[in-house]
Amino acid sequence: MENLRKGRFTLPGEAGIDEEVKRLIDKWGADAIRNSDGTKLPKELMDLAIKVYATYLTVRNDQKWAYSHKDQLQMQYLMSKHNIATSDTLEIDIMDGYFKRQFEIDENHDVKRYWEVYDRTTGEVVDINEWSFDSKTKKVIIENVKKWHRYTVSFLVYQVWDTTQMYNHLTNNWTTPPEMPYDIIHEETREHIFNYLEDWLKENSSVDVVRFTTFFYHFTIAYNNMEKEKFVDWFGYSASVSPEAMDEFERVKGYKLRAENFVDEGYFNSPFRVPSKEYLDWIEFMQQFVSKNAKKCVDLCHKYGKEAMMFLGDNWIGTEPYGEYFGSIGLDSVVGSVGSGATLRLISDIPHVKYTEGRFLPYFFPDTFHEGGNPTKEAVENWVQARRAILRSPIDRMGYGGYLSLAIKFPEFVDKVQEITDEFREMHCNIAGTKAYTPKFKVAVLNAWGKLRSWQTNMVAHALWYKKIYSYVGVIECLSGMSVDVAFISFDDIKKNGIPEDIGVIINAGDAETAWSGHHYWIDEEVTGKIREWVYNGGGFIGVGEPTAYQYQGRYFQLSDVLGVDRERSFTLSYTRHDKVYEKPHFILEDQKKDMDFGEGMKYVYSTGDNTKILSMDKGDINLAVNEFGKGRAVYISGLPYTPENVRLLLRSIYWCSHKEEDMFTWFTSNSNTECAAYLETGNVAVINNSDELQKTELYKDRNSSIKLSLKPYEIKWVKADSF
Amino acid sequence: MENLRKGRFTLPGEAGIDEEVKRLIDKWGADAIRNSDGTKLPKELMDLAIKVYATYLTVRNDQKWAYSHKDQLQMQYLMSKHNIATSDTLEIDIMDGYFKRQFEIDENHDVKRYWEVYDRTTGEVVDINEWSFDSKTKKVIIENVKKWHRYTVSFLVYQVWDTTQMYNHLTNNWTTPPEMPYDIIHEETREHIFNYLEDWLKENSSVDVVRFTTFFYHFTIAYNNMEKEKFVDWFGYSASVSPEAMDEFERVKGYKLRAENFVDEGYFNSPFRVPSKEYLDWIEFMQQFVSKNAKKCVDLCHKYGKEAMMFLGDNWIGTEPYGEYFGSIGLDSVVGSVGSGATLRLISDIPHVKYTEGRFLPYFFPDTFHEGGNPTKEAVENWVQARRAILRSPIDRMGYGGYLSLAIKFPEFVDKVQEITDEFREMHCNIAGTKAYTPKFKVAVLNAWGKLRSWQTNMVAHALWYKKIYSYVGVIECLSGMSVDVAFISFDDIKKNGIPEDIGVIINAGDAETAWSGHHYWIDEEVTGKIREWVYNGGGFIGVGEPTAYQYQGRYFQLSDVLGVDRERSFTLSYTRHDKVYEKPHFILEDQKKDMDFGEGMKYVYSTGDNTKILSMDKGDINLAVNEFGKGRAVYISGLPYTPENVRLLLRSIYWCSHKEEDMFTWFTSNSNTECAAYLETGNVAVINNSDELQKTELYKDRNSSIKLSLKPYEIKWVKADSF
Repeated sequence: MENLRKGRFTLPGEAGIDEEVKRLIDKWGADAIRNSDGTKLPKELMDLAIKVYATYLTVRNDQKWAYSHKDQLQMQYLMSKHNIATSDTLEIDIMDGYFKRQFEIDENHDVKRYWEVYDRTTGEVVDINEWSFDSKTKKVIIENVKKWHRYTVSFLVYQVWDTTQMYNHLTNNWTTPPEMPYDIIHEETREHIFNYLEDWLKENSSVDVVRFTTFFYHFTIAYNNMEKEKFVDWFGYSASVSPEAMDEFERVKGYKLRAENFVDEGYFNSPFRVPSKEYLDWIEFMQQFVSKNAKKCVDLCHKYGKEAMMFLGDNWIGTEPYGEYFGSIGLDSVVGSVGSGATLRLISDIPHVKYTEGRFLPYFFPDTFHEGGNPTKEAVENWVQARRAILRSPIDRMGYGGYLSLAIKFPEFVDKVQEITDEFREMHCNIAGTKAYTPKFKVAVLNAWGKLRSWQTNMVAHALWYKKIYSYVGVIECLSGMSVDVAFISFDDIKKNGIPEDIGVIINAGDAETAWSGHHYWIDEEVTGKIREWVYNGGGFIGVGEPTAYQYQGRYFQLSDVLGVDRERSFTLSYTRHDKVYEKPHFILEDQKKDMDFGEGMKYVYSTGDNTKILSMDKGDINLAVNEFGKGRAVYISGLPYTPENVRLLLRSIYWCSHKEEDMFTWFTSNSNTECAAYLETGNVAVINNSDELQKTELYKDRNSSIKLSLKPYEIKWVKADSF
Repeated sequence: MENLRKGRFTLPGEAGIDEEVKRLIDKWGADAIRNSDGTKLPKELMDLAIKVYATYLTVRNDQKWAYSHKDQLQMQYLMSKHNIATSDTLEIDIMDGYFKRQFEIDENHDVKRYWEVYDRTTGEVVDINEWSFDSKTKKVIIENVKKWHRYTVSFLVYQVWDTTQMYNHLTNNWTTPPEMPYDIIHEETREHIFNYLEDWLKENSSVDVVRFTTFFYHFTIAYNNMEKEKFVDWFGYSASVSPEAMDEFERVKGYKLRAENFVDEGYFNSPFRVPSKEYLDWIEFMQQFVSKNAKKCVDLCHKYGKEAMMFLGDNWIGTEPYGEYFGSIGLDSVVGSVGSGATLRLISDIPHVKYTEGRFLPYFFPDTFHEGGNPTKEAVENWVQARRAILRSPIDRMGYGGYLSLAIKFPEFVDKVQEITDEFREMHCNIAGTKAYTPKFKVAVLNAWGKLRSWQTNMVAHALWYKKIYSYVGVIECLSGMSVDVAFISFDDIKKNGIPEDIGVIINAGDAETAWSGHHYWIDEEVTGKIREWVYNGGGFIGVGEPTAYQYQGRYFQLSDVLGVDRERSFTLSYTRHDKVYEKPHFILEDQKKDMDFGEGMKYVYSTGDNTKILSMDKGDINLAVNEFGKGRAVYISGLPYTPENVRLLLRSIYWCSHKEEDMFTWFTSNSNTECAAYLETGNVAVINNSDELQKTELYKDRNSSIKLSLKPYEIKWVKADSF
């Protein structure tokens, strides 16, 4: 039986305020305490809670090793700026624009083997005999260049400052000496990492959970010469590379990689790029290598009776939880930061672990916890946005991060966290490990990445807002708390296995040419053929933004016949448009009360079919349209930021697309600001108010039976399923 | 000496209101009268004015010929709808969606030679043995299709209804029998056209000017099955085609054309498409053929002592006035419709003719001339927008079109036209055939068409407003009345001849992948190399919208190094942006007083250079930026609709780009709503008020001498150049 006042909560520890810590352990019902990066807990506190988490920094805990093995530090591929040749010789200051305290040029390996000089005007590699590196000036000199062409140099550097520590240094004015990450690719370092961990495990008997932050390779970060962020790719493998790993790759995969396979025209294989074969091979190679060695770390933890927990972030490259090799690591748990419903699901859906934990916002940092700050508001909004996702797929535990000493200055906040933690435990009590009702069909999110990037589609960096993406991220954010089962599938999945039986609706959302939309996959006759056939026979297809886009053979949206719309690229301006909004009511619009919000939307979309029904148009451009294709149906939406109305728009689109309009009313609430989750095995139904106002709503068991409810701002109400 | 009360004006004639016509000839100072398509003038009226124009419809004046030679009617390539194959056989109703009274399927020529069936999924032509045309059902049946692929049929039709007459029928409810255009490609018809013209010339001795409307081939129009416009391309050659012409082309050019060369994926070689070699060859072939035969018509007119005038529109295909062969026709004059400053220049800049004439708006048609209509306002706005262009390059004559009987019901309008015509004659009096002051350098508009499409860049159909283009058309509209000389150059010009000595600034304006922006020319190292070198050595470059765009080798704007900006296509979202607006004053902003208007603008533009100065940004996206590249300068503008402020923005950009800021004040007015034109040979300076409000302005002779002026709404004021 669930303890409603204690458990499932991890407190960030802090030294020097022991009494306050004890009070909060009690108030928030903590059953675990953890030290953070930079915090050492006194023994007394570590003994207080049931479990003690200790952060473990696998590749930088022993800085003596780092400083004495500088040839075994981690490396990274960088690309110089684009340089225009204005005379026959071009000198390129390769580090120009980079932060020189972060990187040191690698002069230990053969530059002619691992570096590349590119003529970016022609896309050709410059012959290695035409350039040289001057170790004194740190410049690459290219002879016989083609005048007025632009050139770049791709080169290797050592990471001489760990990116997370560097970030903390520069952001929080830390003054500790720079830490450097060593590279497990080297056998000597590898052995040392395991030995050092084993020693540490022996010495830290009071630690119950080793919280790896994380394993071996950090996501990609490069700072600029102004000590500001230049490049951050939360998914990037650029910092997992080294000549030794490339050589090993060649041995395993049977072919050689080039600098360009990592540098990728300067895009560094951003997740928005349709991944190349070489990059996918590298990901697999690195996942196998990382998983194998991470497993050794986990095994050591188990040997010493401790749990192994992984932080989802920082040095997480190679351990992607939805990858093929994650299960083999044998982790007990994963903890990650919760910035939204989608990032909650990113954590809570992780397979192969005993439990998951979410770290909620706000961090107890001075950016929020200062005079005039409103941490309570931020906490409530973060909680409420995550809560609807928790109802679909609960994380097992929650916690916060940062400095307790800051939080306790805000008593209202401290009280609010108590409410939240109690509510969280109550949810687990009522859910009791069962699953909320969902219809029989699944909704598939289709892109070039598929399962590997579950709940990460169209994301730049973990829940961060970008103008270019929020109208797409809204799709997974809406889905994260929706009563449907969601699958993430790739074009290659469809090519290999067709469309799985249990899929009812496919969603393709993203900008043209990105991995999320699909780019060249849409001129693959197998992909378009299988999807057309499937829709024609009754499937549902929802396109957002520039779905199925590839300019080819008279069409931009290659499935414009399915979607009923295409996008004007100026080539069909000579065609007279006769688009008019469909004036009758439509099922998918029934919950729309005010102006619809399509976010950034997508200009210049027009109808291509005689039967396209335009449901919303702005200055001649279609924002929302529905179409029928054979027995199937399709919906086009120009953009779908996360709003309560858009959750409904997507929900209704899904049910309409799959011809199951009536079924939508099985466990449904009438008011868009409210949602419900029915746990039929336990007989409990949760009804939530996602808004900061009182809401009246009708809870439907099915089309014919409902009850009326009133919910206070942000309230969760539990109703018995048999009370209808 | 110019007669200020009479001359330079052509009245549209109308039968049955002779007294009113006489009054208007006097009031508006008409020295010519013309009959319109559908109007026959009584002899008395034709004798009244000095000159009589008669409309001559070269390819449809003799409908007896048309009806008795239906195998010699004009033809057109059409493309069927896209059809998805849902079984092994696909039947395509090729005329589905077309207007069957406009077109008749050509069954006289070998369909297997001239038609094409396309698999648009793969881009492959279907083998001619795999399909057949069923003459009974008018369907194409394709066997062994690939299921779920989309197919189109490209086929030839006869034009059984002249498009202009059809338009008038359907728009103005005409009831005359359908007229059909015959094709001069047939020798028999060709001889008949000349003979018929000669007979007509003999019979119409009172006609002074034969106004050809026009020669032989109409621009492309197709109507849909609802009798509405489906496709209109004012520049399109699709209706100039026939098997006979294709065969002749093969003889002349040495290679065979295919249906796809005309159908072009269904885009029908829209001017927004970068023209293919085949299409350019066809244009040249057709221009030679049309010019040769048009010359014969003109020679006949001259033989009978008449002038030959061409209407710029309708059947104008092959006679483009900026083409290589136009001069050889030997026309006396061209008349065209004035919808804006740019369309005025399109007429007034035409070389090789004795005079040009503009037909002003509004047409005396019921759409404007009805109770509650305001034709006066429309006339004034049309006049004022054209006037600034007239000051740069005057048309020689003006006129109106439509029904006089409608105009005379609006006495205020009749008075206003008197004012306008008097003002027009006064302008000619003061200009006296001289040219207004311009600086020494020229401004070049660079695109894939160059000179051939002078003053037509980014236009869909003669001055019509489209959401997708007005932010680009604004560029030429601004230029049309600006005190700079403008050249239109193509990428091929630059490849062949480099950048002409007299060019000071190059403008590249348009959407990515269009002929106006340039598409694949921007990955042509010769093009980028020559332009980079030229800017580096001091040239000015102005990019509007998506200039130099082609996604290649890490850049979208291939000259982002010159422009200092690029556009985010999602691949560089991982790069942290640090863009900030440049806070100091800047020369090009000095006339901007309120919010700037970038029209549709261009989202997601960011700076790429360290030295880019961002002058305007909206929600993180750059609308206006300047950059230096070597000794040269560049300006990026996200969109430039035509407004008085944007005229100034462009003018200042031009002077800034060319390092001639101080020179801008030579003949300059301080107030953006006013402009001036200085005719130094005559000593007269025109100052115009383009606004409907009183404006105070300062007229600069140069940086150091100016006089203050006050101008009534829309006033033109003439000042002596030596009064400073």
